[in-house]
Amino acid sequence: MPPNSALQLAYPWTRTPLVASAPMLNIASAALAVAVSTAGGLGFLAGGFDVSTLGSNLEEAAQLIKKSDSTIQRRYASTGILPIGVGFLNWGADLPKSIAAIKEHRPCAAWLFGPKTTPDDLHPWVEEVRAVTDRKTKIWVQVGSVAEAVAIAEALDPDVLVVQGSDAGGHGLARSASIITLVPEVQDALAVRKLKQEIPLVAAGGIVDGRGVAASLALGASGVAMGTRFLACSEAQIARGYQAEVLRASDGGVCTVRSTVYDRVRGILSWPGRYDGRGVINKSYVDAVEGGMSDEENRVLYQKELKKGDSGWGPNARLTTYAGTGVGLVREALPAANIVADVVEEAQNTLQHLRL
Amino acid sequence: MPPNSALQLAYPWTRTPLVASAPMLNIASAALAVAVSTAGGLGFLAGGFDVSTLGSNLEEAAQLIKKSDSTIQRRYASTGILPIGVGFLNWGADLPKSIAAIKEHRPCAAWLFGPKTTPDDLHPWVEEVRAVTDRKTKIWVQVGSVAEAVAIAEALDPDVLVVQGSDAGGHGLARSASIITLVPEVQDALAVRKLKQEIPLVAAGGIVDGRGVAASLALGASGVAMGTRFLACSEAQIARGYQAEVLRASDGGVCTVRSTVYDRVRGILSWPGRYDGRGVINKSYVDAVEGGMSDEENRVLYQKELKKGDSGWGPNARLTTYAGTGVGLVREALPAANIVADVVEEAQNTLQHLRL
Repeated sequence: MPPNSALQLAYPWTRTPLVASAPMLNIASAALAVAVSTAGGLGFLAGGFDVSTLGSNLEEAAQLIKKSDSTIQRRYASTGILPIGVGFLNWGADLPKSIAAIKEHRPCAAWLFGPKTTPDDLHPWVEEVRAVTDRKTKIWVQVGSVAEAVAIAEALDPDVLVVQGSDAGGHGLARSASIITLVPEVQDALAVRKLKQEIPLVAAGGIVDGRGVAASLALGASGVAMGTRFLACSEAQIARGYQAEVLRASDGGVCTVRSTVYDRVRGILSWPGRYDGRGVINKSYVDAVEGGMSDEENRVLYQKELKKGDSGWGPNARLTTYAGTGVGLVREALPAANIVADVVEEAQNTLQHLRL
Repeated sequence: MPPNSALQLAYPWTRTPLVASAPMLNIASAALAVAVSTAGGLGFLAGGFDVSTLGSNLEEAAQLIKKSDSTIQRRYASTGILPIGVGFLNWGADLPKSIAAIKEHRPCAAWLFGPKTTPDDLHPWVEEVRAVTDRKTKIWVQVGSVAEAVAIAEALDPDVLVVQGSDAGGHGLARSASIITLVPEVQDALAVRKLKQEIPLVAAGGIVDGRGVAASLALGASGVAMGTRFLACSEAQIARGYQAEVLRASDGGVCTVRSTVYDRVRGILSWPGRYDGRGVINKSYVDAVEGGMSDEENRVLYQKELKKGDSGWGPNARLTTYAGTGVGLVREALPAANIVADVVEEAQNTLQHLRL
């Protein structure tokens, strides 16, 4: 692999290829982000749309890193830049509070996703993040179409584009291609506009193991982000019922579906209309889409199900298992360090064996 | 790449990696199939659901091969096996007529797709094809989920599984993952059941150039099938308006959609319910899905549009442009030989440059 100088310069502790853990809302804890970066990946903390705990989560990450005995501990000590990133859901996140937390803790990356209306909504984010960290916090922007990639690249000059395909779990564009066609078409569209050499692409959506990583590199990505794989991870802040359902589900294109039902039953109604979310099919979905149940009734049943705890997850239950089509490739829960090491090694071996 | 002995033994004239042209209904002509095989790929002729012209199309292919001066001409002369394959839509194709044509012309592969109900419907096809060609015609079966792959592998002992992901153009399972997760999950499911070493996987769905081919190999495929790329091909039997729309369309995840509308407006109502088809969004789709237009009214408008000829295609017109999400990567019409050569060379180069 031609090392991507931009990514490698920014994150010199990372192994090649670069594996990031996605900033999954409520799940990507400080412990998970630090474990991934300690293992030679790039961990992202969930900032989400409610950033009220962002400062304390970043402080927790800083303490974990200070107490560790690793490359990133030394790097943090010498640079003052936290070797983990933070992900925002920009349609809802409060800008001043977010900037205050970033200014104080200086994460190495801010992953922006989901402007309320247009890419221009992200302008103040990019400018303020760069201003308060002297451009040390790199700007990652997630896109799901060629049009978005071009618009963001031209308007915001991001440091990294996260190119998310239709297999992804959780939220993304309702209308999208998988990374099989999306990554190359984005690569070509940026190259035509002389933007590509400046902006590394990180592929996301359906990448679960080294085969997916190797494929992503072949398609033109410089690194990958994985969400679903890290749901089954010791450090993930996730209910046991949720994790058990991730381990159970198989045939990911059949057992998952993109829908807005899972937001509606939980009363999360502020996602811009162009997004939906992929999750494992359960009773909430079947009742709504096949049974015509109203959101109100479905929500009451969801609230009741919450009281069941871990048994509230599953195909015949109602709690939401957001996960991508790669869920069928996730078969055991492992420490984050093992996941990063396995995936990097498998990607390297896969490519070594494929020399034609 | 570890050469796949089963594929290489069966089709020794093909280059590595193996590139097949898909048996696109009404489009994959004898000229296209022969051009692809002559160039070192594996061309498939469309058998479809109405096999009344299959015999004459195979005869045309045989004549083209006899007149050519190429490796496959010599191979055909020495073996009597036509170095092209035939694809069937098995929910509608007549078995005795198909077997008669196969017995007479002995194509090197029969690609089965779309049993009316269960995999068992394909049993007589597999047995009769093998019986009349002494197993010289290899059995390819197209699947779109892990469950289908396992069921077909266990029930039919196919020679090749075509694993089609959600990015594919034209017909496929309405509920599916892209090949990013589908190919590895199928590979693992077969390996667990000790079936994998016997059955090479051919990936399909979103593969348009050498990057997609290299990615497919990384995911576990031994070869690929491309449909959309060969729509923009000199030898394709395709209206100029259709081809122009393929060249125009971009941002393939946004401009295409999976739907049954395009069948309904054309009065093709016999596809089993689990399938739909991906095509470029046009007025038929918008009127039906966003405007609530009835199929009857939509069909009348479609029939009128047919009289416009080539101007009947496009986003503001009504004739069907079946194409996959890779349509945005198709930018020029080329002879089939150039497509095969470019794709094989780009795949090889991509993998060479990705050694980690």
